[in-house]
Amino acid sequence: MVEIAADPTHPRYQSLLMRHRLEEAEKKGMLAGSALIAHGRGEAFDYLLGEQTVPSALKATHQALAYLLAAQRPVISLNGNAVALAGKELLHLADQLKCPVEINIFYRTPERMEALLSHLEQIKREESFDVEILGANPDARIPGLEGPRANCVRRGIFDSDVVFVPLEDGDRCEALMAMGKTVLVVDLNPLSRTAQMASVTMVDELTRVVANMNIALTNQPHPFVDDTFQNEDALSAVLVHIRDYITSA
Amino acid sequence: MVEIAADPTHPRYQSLLMRHRLEEAEKKGMLAGSALIAHGRGEAFDYLLGEQTVPSALKATHQALAYLLAAQRPVISLNGNAVALAGKELLHLADQLKCPVEINIFYRTPERMEALLSHLEQIKREESFDVEILGANPDARIPGLEGPRANCVRRGIFDSDVVFVPLEDGDRCEALMAMGKTVLVVDLNPLSRTAQMASVTMVDELTRVVANMNIALTNQPHPFVDDTFQNEDALSAVLVHIRDYITSA
Repeated sequence: MVEIAADPTHPRYQSLLMRHRLEEAEKKGMLAGSALIAHGRGEAFDYLLGEQTVPSALKATHQALAYLLAAQRPVISLNGNAVALAGKELLHLADQLKCPVEINIFYRTPERMEALLSHLEQIKREESFDVEILGANPDARIPGLEGPRANCVRRGIFDSDVVFVPLEDGDRCEALMAMGKTVLVVDLNPLSRTAQMASVTMVDELTRVVANMNIALTNQPHPFVDDTFQNEDALSAVLVHIRDYITSA
Repeated sequence: MVEIAADPTHPRYQSLLMRHRLEEAEKKGMLAGSALIAHGRGEAFDYLLGEQTVPSALKATHQALAYLLAAQRPVISLNGNAVALAGKELLHLADQLKCPVEINIFYRTPERMEALLSHLEQIKREESFDVEILGANPDARIPGLEGPRANCVRRGIFDSDVVFVPLEDGDRCEALMAMGKTVLVVDLNPLSRTAQMASVTMVDELTRVVANMNIALTNQPHPFVDDTFQNEDALSAVLVHIRDYITSA
């Protein structure tokens, strides 16, 4: 249904491309019923950012990357929307960081897990990425969560010190923080529970975040952890940006 | 996938009920591929309103109702999301106003038209509404639009003086305005092209708008057209509300 502009300079090109990727993922059975609605919420907040990486978001992204580089056991946790929107880019990042990825979805069914795993395995083969893809056989549980959404892999999320979880739900973000991990999230809503609770919140669109990380990795020196970074200050700066955008409209 | 709280006093009840209605409509083939994403965008803006009818939105709703009551040839134009979210409530409104509804969708396919028509005809039968449902046989075109999205019915939208089009796209809103009609829209994004161009923009969630109209119709006297109403002032008042919400967060 989505018409993709043939011309990448079209102002809606990026946004339409993301919708197209979601529709393709939907057809493959990779998404939960709430995935498209969640994406639409993100689109609205991105609109209020001017669909751009604002300076405080870039700063948060470099801080997050610094944590990943300094980690003993980093892991990237992937849900359906993250795989659909930026599966290749995220595997490229994991390949550069030499860390595993773990498929960890809120509405876990064998069919969705299989669709996501085979999609990622195909990208890995095509791009010759050297990345371990975890998630098929969970052998541990995240304390404080109930049902299948607590499932995780011991040598992945469970034992990690730093976890990059794009597009995470509030309860799970809270549970991971309670385990003492450094939790790095991407959330376009700066007022969400996830955004408010994480160690570092990147209020930016996922593919822009991953692109900015991959760019920073090609530069030397790599970003280092800034001990003066305060996540609430970064969130406040984004809210000021949105407020000014609304006021000037 | 959506879990509906059994208790209507649950804070997320209304929002989850709307998602449930969309999922049911999706199963019946009533929605375009972009429908759920559009709904998510609306959810995000509604979140910034505090999921409530703000005073300026209620004022706009009464102004819109006054235009419908004073119209010579009013019509309610319905797309997939409007039918899914508030089909029964909108038919009830049309029954009270003694005006026709016209199914008029952006991505027109015979299958979607048939799904929407049969859904509305079923509600009409069950509720004994006396409402003409137009749209099956378009016999006119909206000037300035290309392809099937220009199709409309002569004694419906084409000849109307006042058209209530919840959830309208920007191009069509512009084309209807260019025909000299009074165009009444519901749009949760106060910065959208549709919101900026319409005669009256109700920045509110659709089912709340229709409920407020149906309530106002049970009271006497009915609202009358306020000649001092300025749509841009109503939009500015909503933006101030959102700005204050963000600033106080």
